[in-house]
Amino acid sequence: MTISRLTKAVFGAALIASTPLAFAADQPALEDSTIETAKMLRDAALKSDVAYDLLESLTTEVGPRLAGSVKEQEAIDWAVAKFKSLGFDKVYTEPVQVPKWERISEAASVVAPFAQPLTITALGKSAATPEGGVTAEIVHYATFEDLQSANPDDVNGKIVFISNRMERKIDGAGYGPAVQARGRGASEAARKGAVAIVIRSIGTDSHRLPHTGGVNYEEDAPRIAAAALSNPDADQLERMMKRGLPITLHLDIQTKDLGTVEMANVIGEITGTTLPNEYVVLGSHLDSWDLGTGAVDDGAGVAITMATADLIKRIAPRPKRTIRVVLFSAEEIGLVGARQYAERHAANIEEFAIGAESDFGAGPIWALASRVNPDATFVVDKMAQLMGAIGVVRADRIAGGGPDVGQLARVGMPVMDLLQNGDDYFDLHHTADDTFDKIIPENMRQNMAAWAVFTYVAADWPGSFK
Amino acid sequence: MTISRLTKAVFGAALIASTPLAFAADQPALEDSTIETAKMLRDAALKSDVAYDLLESLTTEVGPRLAGSVKEQEAIDWAVAKFKSLGFDKVYTEPVQVPKWERISEAASVVAPFAQPLTITALGKSAATPEGGVTAEIVHYATFEDLQSANPDDVNGKIVFISNRMERKIDGAGYGPAVQARGRGASEAARKGAVAIVIRSIGTDSHRLPHTGGVNYEEDAPRIAAAALSNPDADQLERMMKRGLPITLHLDIQTKDLGTVEMANVIGEITGTTLPNEYVVLGSHLDSWDLGTGAVDDGAGVAITMATADLIKRIAPRPKRTIRVVLFSAEEIGLVGARQYAERHAANIEEFAIGAESDFGAGPIWALASRVNPDATFVVDKMAQLMGAIGVVRADRIAGGGPDVGQLARVGMPVMDLLQNGDDYFDLHHTADDTFDKIIPENMRQNMAAWAVFTYVAADWPGSFK
Repeated sequence: MTISRLTKAVFGAALIASTPLAFAADQPALEDSTIETAKMLRDAALKSDVAYDLLESLTTEVGPRLAGSVKEQEAIDWAVAKFKSLGFDKVYTEPVQVPKWERISEAASVVAPFAQPLTITALGKSAATPEGGVTAEIVHYATFEDLQSANPDDVNGKIVFISNRMERKIDGAGYGPAVQARGRGASEAARKGAVAIVIRSIGTDSHRLPHTGGVNYEEDAPRIAAAALSNPDADQLERMMKRGLPITLHLDIQTKDLGTVEMANVIGEITGTTLPNEYVVLGSHLDSWDLGTGAVDDGAGVAITMATADLIKRIAPRPKRTIRVVLFSAEEIGLVGARQYAERHAANIEEFAIGAESDFGAGPIWALASRVNPDATFVVDKMAQLMGAIGVVRADRIAGGGPDVGQLARVGMPVMDLLQNGDDYFDLHHTADDTFDKIIPENMRQNMAAWAVFTYVAADWPGSFK
Repeated sequence: MTISRLTKAVFGAALIASTPLAFAADQPALEDSTIETAKMLRDAALKSDVAYDLLESLTTEVGPRLAGSVKEQEAIDWAVAKFKSLGFDKVYTEPVQVPKWERISEAASVVAPFAQPLTITALGKSAATPEGGVTAEIVHYATFEDLQSANPDDVNGKIVFISNRMERKIDGAGYGPAVQARGRGASEAARKGAVAIVIRSIGTDSHRLPHTGGVNYEEDAPRIAAAALSNPDADQLERMMKRGLPITLHLDIQTKDLGTVEMANVIGEITGTTLPNEYVVLGSHLDSWDLGTGAVDDGAGVAITMATADLIKRIAPRPKRTIRVVLFSAEEIGLVGARQYAERHAANIEEFAIGAESDFGAGPIWALASRVNPDATFVVDKMAQLMGAIGVVRADRIAGGGPDVGQLARVGMPVMDLLQNGDDYFDLHHTADDTFDKIIPENMRQNMAAWAVFTYVAADWPGSFK
């Protein structure tokens, strides 16, 4: 998952949607059959390993799938083949133009006063250092804001080190403040003359597995190499700093920008009965960072959304609306697939009844938030009630729709958030440790159960969420 | 820690030492002042961060310290300087001839059917692959014993993969059975024509941080490259194998043997009053593997033993015997420093009253075992009683003395084992994750407290443990 400024904008949107509401006069009621089918699906999902097995397949047979790479194309082919073999009614792709970036090599070491190697990873889209690397003294800032207020004389010619620590929170709320260092640090440092930047990983673990993630270069700044130290290595550097001696680092980051390539969003549909041209969108992203196999980010979301639609197709009466599962391309490097998708479909946004996204790992869902017309709130409340049996509460917040589906929210689609427990998500996020062994099958089933309730009710209730 | 066949031999030794015994007529009694001082030291240790701070210093200022490397020499210099600055009575080194081996690079990938990189590390002392690496189909064995009974026709030309999983146990008992694959797998595979061997890491974690550790090449077998997959990567390979397709790996391991260099065991002594030529040996090892900074293996032992002797020197009346802290060189690559130490001192083994070793991480001590003359058992029982207040029980097993100090046990020195809780030791052991951030200060204090009791009582009681 990438959390963008756009998501924040959506979160901050003015709609107040969660006012408790009884049945609204101008909206159709929820039929008993819809509710009974949703319950049946929920209970069946709790016994289904389809999501778990799909995730096993994607992470094992494709593995890492960096945006724009041969491996992302393999993932696209995998998804098309899976949708077809599951018997979705429509399976198709829509082209996405994706900037291609490659990690070649990365190395860092303390040169003085305590020579030793450091474990780092280049941030996604990082520029390379000059061949052979750069050697310079570090200048330390506790936060991005401290770097912003730094005197350029202190930064010029140095390697900037930002050491801010991400806080662990169930909803990942610690990410936003800490990730400024990753997204904006490089350009801020470069404007002040830094030759490179290293940050403490934006993550909550203590393993020597650094967290990558996109860096955003701004137009007015030179592009300097940007890398993340593993958290134990950042600790080590901080311990060294306590000795009060100048610290010299060597940093050798080799990467390549390889222009633009064509990838694709992959779409699988279960066609609705009476409202086939209205869509309930289930979003997730097919690309991953290159270090792990993208099990929690976002293979889990791919598997949960595919398995949910598959379950409905297999064992439920067809709902009225079409269920559209969209697997976005190139999320990690800037929501590329989702932005192009929203642009392509903005003119027809009326057809998009409601959407949600699964892109926060494989922890259980604990809360349900919405951004819908108040007239439709009673439907969301009913969903939450149906999910109560599997530990879900109605969240007192406005849904954002997630980074990708949030792009459709921006152009007018109502959204819901099926909020997952992310206590350990940022232990794994964007690291080599994001692998299938971390996945707990029961949690995949619980996710499917919640998604089945949302999807079926949203697709079978003929009223408007807008 | 390396667990050797020698340690096993010591464990299996015929002496039955733990028969409960009251006061023995031909041995002096334990004086009240000895017991009172031991209590005082124990309680003072629980408030001391000297061990924690020494470990912080070693891991931060030296960091990784591979046997025979410039970094091991730095560690030797660090230890000499620390002993001196702590004010030990005698500080000296004894030369050790150490085989020098270097890791240059390591890479592995699945070539087919599911192309993707794998995380591996060369085993310690591994031979290199031919330049550019080897590409071959894998042949899988669940255990070393399965490889032993394999038909050479099945192995010839292949890369052997042994997937045995180490079991988690408080005393590390899962290590011995699993580590056969690491120590003996390469030569067994090579005799049957294998071109290389990869094993599941001998470790209990699920992180993408492979465990290195020594490989033993036998004289009658070609030396093939040997590497460990991280546990998640071994899982991945096993998942691929379930598809029933042949799996081709590429493995590129570059290492160097660089002959023999002179390193040193470092010794610091607190001279005894009335029995200055009798030694209580506190052992640990100064070298570490190169991947981490050797915090749990065995910086912790270095710090605990140094800090224990220092505490006694600072706040207790001098005991009768000399306390000799020995920091061994080059343990990881075959107990090199300890073997040479035992050889050098075997003729004077009568001077070595008793010894113990700290080389099982930084977990709390939970049990006390001994291998002493039955006449001296009452002294050990008293030590255990004094340690009862900090959670230590008398262990119903015969002490081995640890890998290094066990070399002195073999030539006649009585030993004790201050057994540490090793539940999570093999999560970190021999990985890049063996770093200072994993150390819990309270546990270092508890270790010091137990060591202070053992050391003071052993040094101040004038009877014989032999």
